[in-house]
Amino acid sequence: MATRHSSFTTIRILQALHMTERFRAWYLLETSHDVGLVAEILAGEQSTAKGVRLPGDTGDEIHERYGARIESIELLDESARPSLPSREQGGGVCRRAEVCLSWPVHNVGASLPILWVTLLGNQVGMRQLSGIRLRRLELPASFVRSCPLPQFGIHGTRRLTGVYGRPLIGCIVKPNIGLTPEQTAGAVRELAASGIDFIKDDELIASPPYSPLAARVAAVMPVIDEIAQGTGRKVMYAFNITDEYDQMLRHHDTVLAAGGTCVMVDINGVGLSGLASLRRHCQLPIHGHRAGWAMFTRSPALGMDFQPYQAIHRLAGVDHLHVSGLGGKFWEDFDTVLSSARHCLTPLSSGPGRDDRAMPVFSGGSTIHQAAPTFHGAGTADLIYTCGTGIMGHPVDLASGCRSMRQAWEAALQGIPLRHYAKTHPELAAALSGRRDPVH
Amino acid sequence: MATRHSSFTTIRILQALHMTERFRAWYLLETSHDVGLVAEILAGEQSTAKGVRLPGDTGDEIHERYGARIESIELLDESARPSLPSREQGGGVCRRAEVCLSWPVHNVGASLPILWVTLLGNQVGMRQLSGIRLRRLELPASFVRSCPLPQFGIHGTRRLTGVYGRPLIGCIVKPNIGLTPEQTAGAVRELAASGIDFIKDDELIASPPYSPLAARVAAVMPVIDEIAQGTGRKVMYAFNITDEYDQMLRHHDTVLAAGGTCVMVDINGVGLSGLASLRRHCQLPIHGHRAGWAMFTRSPALGMDFQPYQAIHRLAGVDHLHVSGLGGKFWEDFDTVLSSARHCLTPLSSGPGRDDRAMPVFSGGSTIHQAAPTFHGAGTADLIYTCGTGIMGHPVDLASGCRSMRQAWEAALQGIPLRHYAKTHPELAAALSGRRDPVH
Repeated sequence: MATRHSSFTTIRILQALHMTERFRAWYLLETSHDVGLVAEILAGEQSTAKGVRLPGDTGDEIHERYGARIESIELLDESARPSLPSREQGGGVCRRAEVCLSWPVHNVGASLPILWVTLLGNQVGMRQLSGIRLRRLELPASFVRSCPLPQFGIHGTRRLTGVYGRPLIGCIVKPNIGLTPEQTAGAVRELAASGIDFIKDDELIASPPYSPLAARVAAVMPVIDEIAQGTGRKVMYAFNITDEYDQMLRHHDTVLAAGGTCVMVDINGVGLSGLASLRRHCQLPIHGHRAGWAMFTRSPALGMDFQPYQAIHRLAGVDHLHVSGLGGKFWEDFDTVLSSARHCLTPLSSGPGRDDRAMPVFSGGSTIHQAAPTFHGAGTADLIYTCGTGIMGHPVDLASGCRSMRQAWEAALQGIPLRHYAKTHPELAAALSGRRDPVH
Repeated sequence: MATRHSSFTTIRILQALHMTERFRAWYLLETSHDVGLVAEILAGEQSTAKGVRLPGDTGDEIHERYGARIESIELLDESARPSLPSREQGGGVCRRAEVCLSWPVHNVGASLPILWVTLLGNQVGMRQLSGIRLRRLELPASFVRSCPLPQFGIHGTRRLTGVYGRPLIGCIVKPNIGLTPEQTAGAVRELAASGIDFIKDDELIASPPYSPLAARVAAVMPVIDEIAQGTGRKVMYAFNITDEYDQMLRHHDTVLAAGGTCVMVDINGVGLSGLASLRRHCQLPIHGHRAGWAMFTRSPALGMDFQPYQAIHRLAGVDHLHVSGLGGKFWEDFDTVLSSARHCLTPLSSGPGRDDRAMPVFSGGSTIHQAAPTFHGAGTADLIYTCGTGIMGHPVDLASGCRSMRQAWEAALQGIPLRHYAKTHPELAAALSGRRDPVH
């Protein structure tokens, strides 16, 4: 009987092992120690750290069922000096390697905050490392499907705006902060009347004393509705509801009740816990602003690439996600921006009726000149193209600014050079010349 | 009348300007451009970015009321090459400077997520910068008082545990993940019976399928209560409730209903929005685990120092905050760890009945040998000292491990060298010798 019991147990464990799906993460590691040893320490630290065992410790069974596993180690180059400081470096050259680790999904359950600290927790601070950067994340479909995920995505956003076959042309109200609700509504009236598809609050304004969210919604939505009655299309306004969670939910309800069609969240200020719960309650697309993302990615030896970052935030439910713009104010080169957009458009899981893509938002220095390279680089028109100066700086007026941007995209989609298309499109021509029309 | 109205308006604006308190942030900036110019761009980007003006733009009044202000620029050293990459560097040497910026508090309202993106948002990614790090944050008392703040802090934690005049000695259940609720309860029984003050879940376990939070609470709390009936002191167990916000609140209620006295939150996985709202509902001390903090701080040219980080999380309501340990597995030198602890203990605002300090948690490699340097470096015994191997590795048993740690702290508090104190304290002597007692 004892033997039989034991073999039953073994079968149960083996079944569990085979049935358990795993998620995989690829890291760039840099260390002056042995790479394999450091990878093992890292895997231990982020799962069943082997320390001293308590009497109740069932030992190897636990490590086998819950331990992180080294899937591969690929040695890369060497560096003469450590990229990051540590009170303990092994001395000598620092080796760089790409290391793939995997974890069983039952370690995390369906918790994105726990996924985050598993991928980017204590191991980032390990003294043996002089570099650690999360490059890529791969998740089993079952895990993906247990997450909130985008609710509206591309199709929902197009349905709400009535814009098809081209990007949504967007604008940010300027000045970005400091306007009263009434002043904001005035700017919205002008933008909406000029044919804009999408308007967003700045990431720095949510519900300050000079423009409480409820007051801004109350001032802006009637204007949007009024203009929609004339044009038949409702401008999508992304109200920034970033706040403590309870407030954020209240702001969402305010926007929804007023007929608004989008809420915006500063995802780094809010965090995964609030974002994922908001998504469970949310009845509107979530416009994900990534202000502060640079802190996670700008040191080549630290932090993370955009692939895992965007994946996790899509799992948490963003429908739109910022990727910077080509030639804007930010540090990233064009390839990084374009590949970021393509990541947002790469399905995390597939299946009938499933669409977990997020709509990439190009923002920051976007003008008529970036339309064609954005279209060709992103390989799609399923994007939001937000401009500030690119529209407001038009030499004639806002309406001409909006029209010129629409024309630049028509040209891009048809593969016609801007200067050529401008010959029959005066607003684009004026934007190209950059001079105010003398008749105005 | 026109004149009179205008002078009234001017007086109103001036009053508002004088009455508006400001928060200040000190940055390390590195740039190959002109430092003053870059500081101006940064101030603009993070407030009333001067772009093209709409007809309704009231111009300078807005910039004066809502603009960030450069308070000081102190040139530091130079670097021959940029610390961080950018698609645009000005060429030549990179100058480093400490720049202090200030913002009026009405820009932010009382929103910590908006404070976060104001301090560490788009500016971190600016192409003109090859380094940007937030070093220090100073907030007006009125702003501090509008935030959630620690609810229990040092006094509340001591009251709940009955531990006075010395640190709370803590332990982490090992293996840190993979135990069933019953196995966890077994480990807790042994630890609690051994005289431990504080036990915490690992940061990687919250409510996974193999140990749902509710089941773990149900298994652990009766053990803690039973032992408390014997000892008269209730061990504080920090249940890790990290999760999506709604779940986190449910977990909190579960812990509270079962008579638990602490909840733990992985603050980087959860985010400010969820943490601050949790604190508004919370009836237990919040144990703040900073797993992943290294990502924010480990590149000297990027991210932030601990002073602003701990301040913001205390504003959001953590009662305890991890600071690493002396000589542990992490990269930080001892001075950094000790100054982190001192920051947690520095009041953000003062006044009768106010105490917004958080209790620093030393964790990671803590043994009997770090007691004295921790006490002298932190300048206080108002701390939590959590050990894993430092207690469980005792050559005799867990009870001896706990006792040896208490003795090491008695020695530290009395200024007696360990070896001297060990002469009359056998558990400490055994821990020092590191050999298993032959009679066991």
